[in-house]
Amino acid sequence: MLIRQATKDDWDSIWPILRRIAADGDTFCCDPDITDGQAYTMWFPPPPARTVVAVADEGAVVGTAVLRPNHGGPGAHVANASFAVDYDHRGHHVGRRLGEHVLALARQDGYCAIQFNAVVETNTHAVALWMSLGFTVLTTVPEAFHHPIAGYVGLHIMHRTLSG
Amino acid sequence: MLIRQATKDDWDSIWPILRRIAADGDTFCCDPDITDGQAYTMWFPPPPARTVVAVADEGAVVGTAVLRPNHGGPGAHVANASFAVDYDHRGHHVGRRLGEHVLALARQDGYCAIQFNAVVETNTHAVALWMSLGFTVLTTVPEAFHHPIAGYVGLHIMHRTLSG
Repeated sequence: MLIRQATKDDWDSIWPILRRIAADGDTFCCDPDITDGQAYTMWFPPPPARTVVAVADEGAVVGTAVLRPNHGGPGAHVANASFAVDYDHRGHHVGRRLGEHVLALARQDGYCAIQFNAVVETNTHAVALWMSLGFTVLTTVPEAFHHPIAGYVGLHIMHRTLSG
Repeated sequence: MLIRQATKDDWDSIWPILRRIAADGDTFCCDPDITDGQAYTMWFPPPPARTVVAVADEGAVVGTAVLRPNHGGPGAHVANASFAVDYDHRGHHVGRRLGEHVLALARQDGYCAIQFNAVVETNTHAVALWMSLGFTVLTTVPEAFHHPIAGYVGLHIMHRTLSG
């Protein structure tokens, strides 16, 4: 598996991954009916943001991530990142590889920390992954996510410093 | 003082307020050199967001606020809001009046809670105001804001439920 910078040509491979995750409605804070154009704007923000794809040995895009400043101006030294792994390629450490890659990119870009604003607490696989990569849960915003099965559940705000 | 929905015609009054606060760099997480167009996009997001202005008795716009969903889709029942008060009209409860108005609007729009993502911890006036209006500090993201005098300071994430 290779992780490389995404180009506009990758969008036709990225969009089905995002569309399915958005439609499932259990991990992403975006409209389940998000359009192609809205999703493209969300996933390809302007620089200094970076979008990457994970490409399997056979050439298929199996995951993707975006790294961007979490806030502007005086808050731009803290990064934010979003991740998406193709449903049919889960359980093969794509998320972990993307996470490690994004941590390295964030360090390279000079960010001091990474903050996730909305990790759904029932997404225990993601929570465990981020904790294994050094993130801590700063707080859990109560009932901030309406899960299709579990109802109102919390959103973890997770954080990891990049110094040292 | 009247608080009413903002229109595009108010932008010429709002922009100088935002420009100065952005340039001061001590409370807003946006580029100190933000352009007119970028600021307009930030302050007039599409519906269901709402932008309001506080208008003094003599007709001058002395403050403004934006209410919007903090996240999309399954997170859209939690609101976010931003506030700006004209430098020359501080100390006259403009912020408090805007805060009370936005809380009422958020209830009216059916939001279950309001979350602030980036209240600078050295902005003690704002922190005290929000606490007096029922907000609590869920967490403080360490060193997440580069203050022009105080250096790296924390960003409070503040929250208030709207039920009951």
